[in-house]
Amino acid sequence: MDQRVLSIQSHVTYGYVGGKAAVFPLQCLGYDVDVINTVNFSNHSGYGRFGGTKTSASELQQILQIMEENQLPDPSRLLTGYIPGPEALSVVQEVAAKLRKRHPKLIYLLDPVMGDSGVLYVSPNVVSIYRAMLPLATIITPNWFEVETLTDFRIVDPQSLRDAIRGLHEEYQVPNVVVSSIPMKPWLAEFLPEEIPKGQPTDLLCIASSKSGSERNSAVYACAVPLIPGYFSGVGDLFSALVLAHFDPDGTSPLPDAVGKALTKTHAIVQLTHAYAQTLEEEDRANTDDELDEKDPMRRVRRMRGRELRLIQGQEIIRGEGSSREMKAWETFW
Amino acid sequence: MDQRVLSIQSHVTYGYVGGKAAVFPLQCLGYDVDVINTVNFSNHSGYGRFGGTKTSASELQQILQIMEENQLPDPSRLLTGYIPGPEALSVVQEVAAKLRKRHPKLIYLLDPVMGDSGVLYVSPNVVSIYRAMLPLATIITPNWFEVETLTDFRIVDPQSLRDAIRGLHEEYQVPNVVVSSIPMKPWLAEFLPEEIPKGQPTDLLCIASSKSGSERNSAVYACAVPLIPGYFSGVGDLFSALVLAHFDPDGTSPLPDAVGKALTKTHAIVQLTHAYAQTLEEEDRANTDDELDEKDPMRRVRRMRGRELRLIQGQEIIRGEGSSREMKAWETFW
Repeated sequence: MDQRVLSIQSHVTYGYVGGKAAVFPLQCLGYDVDVINTVNFSNHSGYGRFGGTKTSASELQQILQIMEENQLPDPSRLLTGYIPGPEALSVVQEVAAKLRKRHPKLIYLLDPVMGDSGVLYVSPNVVSIYRAMLPLATIITPNWFEVETLTDFRIVDPQSLRDAIRGLHEEYQVPNVVVSSIPMKPWLAEFLPEEIPKGQPTDLLCIASSKSGSERNSAVYACAVPLIPGYFSGVGDLFSALVLAHFDPDGTSPLPDAVGKALTKTHAIVQLTHAYAQTLEEEDRANTDDELDEKDPMRRVRRMRGRELRLIQGQEIIRGEGSSREMKAWETFW
Repeated sequence: MDQRVLSIQSHVTYGYVGGKAAVFPLQCLGYDVDVINTVNFSNHSGYGRFGGTKTSASELQQILQIMEENQLPDPSRLLTGYIPGPEALSVVQEVAAKLRKRHPKLIYLLDPVMGDSGVLYVSPNVVSIYRAMLPLATIITPNWFEVETLTDFRIVDPQSLRDAIRGLHEEYQVPNVVVSSIPMKPWLAEFLPEEIPKGQPTDLLCIASSKSGSERNSAVYACAVPLIPGYFSGVGDLFSALVLAHFDPDGTSPLPDAVGKALTKTHAIVQLTHAYAQTLEEEDRANTDDELDEKDPMRRVRRMRGRELRLIQGQEIIRGEGSSREMKAWETFW
């Protein structure tokens, strides 16, 4: 069977975030990708200076409607990422609902891109639409902050973590929840069972939780991944694309297998990027410092340029079939 | 040295023309590609029904200006294809002129996409802008009709062919001219020297002509390629991208080598696509028939769907380093 993904996310001319971080890996892994650009920007917003246009809701609708009229083949998988406003998101909600209804086996990975580290970078009206969309998803890949935003829980201890995960599975009927890059707070490190190596205190934890309708509790898996210093944009977009690409619904443990592969490859690409950034002139790898960045906008730009993902140079990693990090069962989670 | 291409051409959500036919192959061959979409359409216009938006000249300008302000690295190669109107094309002319001035070694492949088989499908005002842009190009890849349009020659015999090629080299100062898919008219077959096999009467001829400033006549190479029945969209876009990707300015014969590789890979992808189309239901592979298509718009749509290039399935071909068709020297051309 031909594998076709409909990817709806941002486009940047320069660099690798959104569609630019997701489409090439999906293509390398054998997927035909139908690409809808929710914005057409020069570069990602982290540069401080960026320009271009957002695709309006009616423009999105027009493209989708012609595709429908032309009876272009429906995708077997759907991937949605950054969508800038509530009107455009509602159009995406509509198409997701239609595809889900037509194809109960559609694999929909919804990345509810809303913000990070306590900062919302979409319109607040977007949150309730994402909540309404969750039941359409096969897999979601929120970050820590997005889990809190979606569930309205502050996650501060094992119980609130359990409540948040349970809420996503039960209230929002999401079968597969993946939360990557969770800071290894002391309570979390202590909560982790011995079978799952904690690694360094700076490691990030990735949790994957799968629930089929009949079970009382979800099956939870986790793996700690070493932190690579510095902030790299597009990492989440790449990770989500790889989870979707490697998710095999007929496999024996589809979610942990896909997440293990996605973690491995994403980590290797970030490592490659970090190693490259280290070879640059000192002024091209200055640390994040809002105050200094404020005084000299090019300071931030130079850092961003040097940290664009080395996706092209690392394409063998993307295609690789080597061994992967293993997501280990967290038997004592519940 | 990192290889970076700036690609300015159309984007379609579904299928493989313009940027969708060019960017993935360039990426597979190791290039970072900065992608500017001149349109964002649902599918190519050959479907009869298509929708979306054209990027305005001022939108293009804004993206290019921010990239300039952010001092994003200049590309080492430039690829321009379908650009829908004179205003947008003028913006592209400006950026090409700027890059050429800054980097005399810039490799600019200009595909003057204007029409085919006697039909112009861009605004007629575009023609004079393309003529003004020709001196900026390193390589141009017009089709037969575009050569006639640019040079204002009707090519009907060896002399008019020589005049057209000479005009492009001398009047427009283009060092490398590639004309692919020339129908093997009897006068052309007769003009071909014995060393260059004519193949079947239905074969298409590809001519590549390189001229460095000091020589009186250009070096001309040619190769006949079997015709694959049916019309496939995006073939020219793929071919141009592959010529650019394989052009090695430090090689011993940069143009014929690149064209030989591009011909080989493009032909193999079209062959794969044709073989796939043959496996479809009869109604999905009906022949071109304007009258029947007129009565039933879906007839045309179905044929177009079945003939989208099998680029993803054939990615090994794109990456391949196997033997190539050889462009043979046409010693008696002049």
